[in-house]
Amino acid sequence: MPELSVFDQETVLNAISPGDAIEHVREGFVEYAGGDWVMPPKVYLDAHPNGDFRAMPAKGAGLAILKWVTSFPRNPVAGLPVVMGMICVSSAVDGEPLALVDVRSVTAMRTGAIAAVAAQELAREDAETVGILGCGLHGAWAARCLAAAEYGPGVCFDPDPEAAGRLAGELGWEAGSREDALACDVVTCVTPGSEPVVFERDLRPGLHLSMLGADGPGKAEAQVEAVARTELFCDEWEQASHGGELTGAVAAGLVSRADVRELGDVLTGAAPGRSGPDAVTLFDSTGLAIQDLAICLALLSAHRASRVSAGTVKL
Amino acid sequence: MPELSVFDQETVLNAISPGDAIEHVREGFVEYAGGDWVMPPKVYLDAHPNGDFRAMPAKGAGLAILKWVTSFPRNPVAGLPVVMGMICVSSAVDGEPLALVDVRSVTAMRTGAIAAVAAQELAREDAETVGILGCGLHGAWAARCLAAAEYGPGVCFDPDPEAAGRLAGELGWEAGSREDALACDVVTCVTPGSEPVVFERDLRPGLHLSMLGADGPGKAEAQVEAVARTELFCDEWEQASHGGELTGAVAAGLVSRADVRELGDVLTGAAPGRSGPDAVTLFDSTGLAIQDLAICLALLSAHRASRVSAGTVKL
Repeated sequence: MPELSVFDQETVLNAISPGDAIEHVREGFVEYAGGDWVMPPKVYLDAHPNGDFRAMPAKGAGLAILKWVTSFPRNPVAGLPVVMGMICVSSAVDGEPLALVDVRSVTAMRTGAIAAVAAQELAREDAETVGILGCGLHGAWAARCLAAAEYGPGVCFDPDPEAAGRLAGELGWEAGSREDALACDVVTCVTPGSEPVVFERDLRPGLHLSMLGADGPGKAEAQVEAVARTELFCDEWEQASHGGELTGAVAAGLVSRADVRELGDVLTGAAPGRSGPDAVTLFDSTGLAIQDLAICLALLSAHRASRVSAGTVKL
Repeated sequence: MPELSVFDQETVLNAISPGDAIEHVREGFVEYAGGDWVMPPKVYLDAHPNGDFRAMPAKGAGLAILKWVTSFPRNPVAGLPVVMGMICVSSAVDGEPLALVDVRSVTAMRTGAIAAVAAQELAREDAETVGILGCGLHGAWAARCLAAAEYGPGVCFDPDPEAAGRLAGELGWEAGSREDALACDVVTCVTPGSEPVVFERDLRPGLHLSMLGADGPGKAEAQVEAVARTELFCDEWEQASHGGELTGAVAAGLVSRADVRELGDVLTGAAPGRSGPDAVTLFDSTGLAIQDLAICLALLSAHRASRVSAGTVKL
């Protein structure tokens, strides 16, 4: 009977710093762009009308992971999280199950980390200030990772002023309006994607936008016309064009494959980043299993080096 | 932090009898054929040259499962099983993780159960004797389930005479040759699928064959010409035609969609079973996530009724 290590939420949050998460997620994108990490398309299992499940496999660095994760948007009404599930980690060499990992903490960290990696690659070199639109769990981690990457100070905006104030207080930033947040150098949107929060009139030369909220069909955080006016980057074209921030602009015929560069290609130098200091860049993050793999790799490395202890379960 | 029930191998084996497994797997096929259970296609994650991982989701009866399972054919050389992994069980209503289940015991039971269901539906009404070709873990469960469905006595054949003798001894059956096994009424093949064990010359009027071993591209237990000469049934056409016993005959142009009926349709009466007592029927089992879901449903029902106790793990 195999014995698995169990990494619960608290263990994950204590084991990995925002800086670790950024470094590992960056490396994961490089490995994926180079073909050393692989990732079949995620599979959706519909659970209409309440939500859906996603099965997300990835392989790299001797590990094979399977993320089993929900998006049940109405759950908070019943006091349950939107995102639930688990990550199964196996050896890619002999298939042996190695670990079971809390999905919420890993998802929050890898989502936050990509906001920092995208800013480092795509924002102006002199970019400093951060605008956060949406201060929920993932918005908070985006802010923490951007702060760890030495961006700031920032402006936090949320329809719930308490959420904005709490995050601003944690980081020594300020709470402000949508307009205040959009006046910053590096703007990260992490809203539910049910209505746009970025419009064409908000675009200013030199702005960088990271759109983290649109992770499925029908979701968008920016007006289609605004998206079409920016220099476009994404984590993965297939996902971004079918269930991401780019989907609306692609469907409207305003954006095609040739207009969009993948972040991994920018990281490896295979594709250029922003064209100049006055460009407006937009990064569409749909969320990739390689990011989860990167965090699991960091976690298992820390465990092997005895920097973190784990529970166990026998199957 | 969610608390999951943990059903290890011993718990699963004690909780579910072969008869329970047969009943639940049969019901799962009926629900799937009727559209009440759903199952997106399984996703393969290649781990060349050692094996592959499969992510298999399914939903029904208020549950959503994700089976994460390996096929690493060379593992036994290193003393490791071919099949490893786990099954994650969540509520389909709110997405909450409910249980973690040992994958080997569930896979063995559901694979064995389908051999019995197929025999009950497709073999001659007066069929009694059982031939088992391949007496490994899954062959043993096929034999146990066929015995539970009151088939027998049987002849067990395996290149390893000890394996055949052990299984025959357990069930009060006999060990014998390939030819002895193939002379029985209900023949079940559960070999690695690396070379054929059923040839055209083995086909006799009234024979029923269940082919359980071919579960991926390049595997086959019967000669293509033998397959093409039988009345064909399968668990699911897409899987069977792309990575099952039917694949070779389909590729050779000898078999097309119209020649093959799905077992679920036979169970619901939407398609006919064997045409008469002298027909030779062949059922291709590739293994479906709905079968795993059926066993998990039996397990959780037994747990809710306090007929089985489970461990727990917190994430």
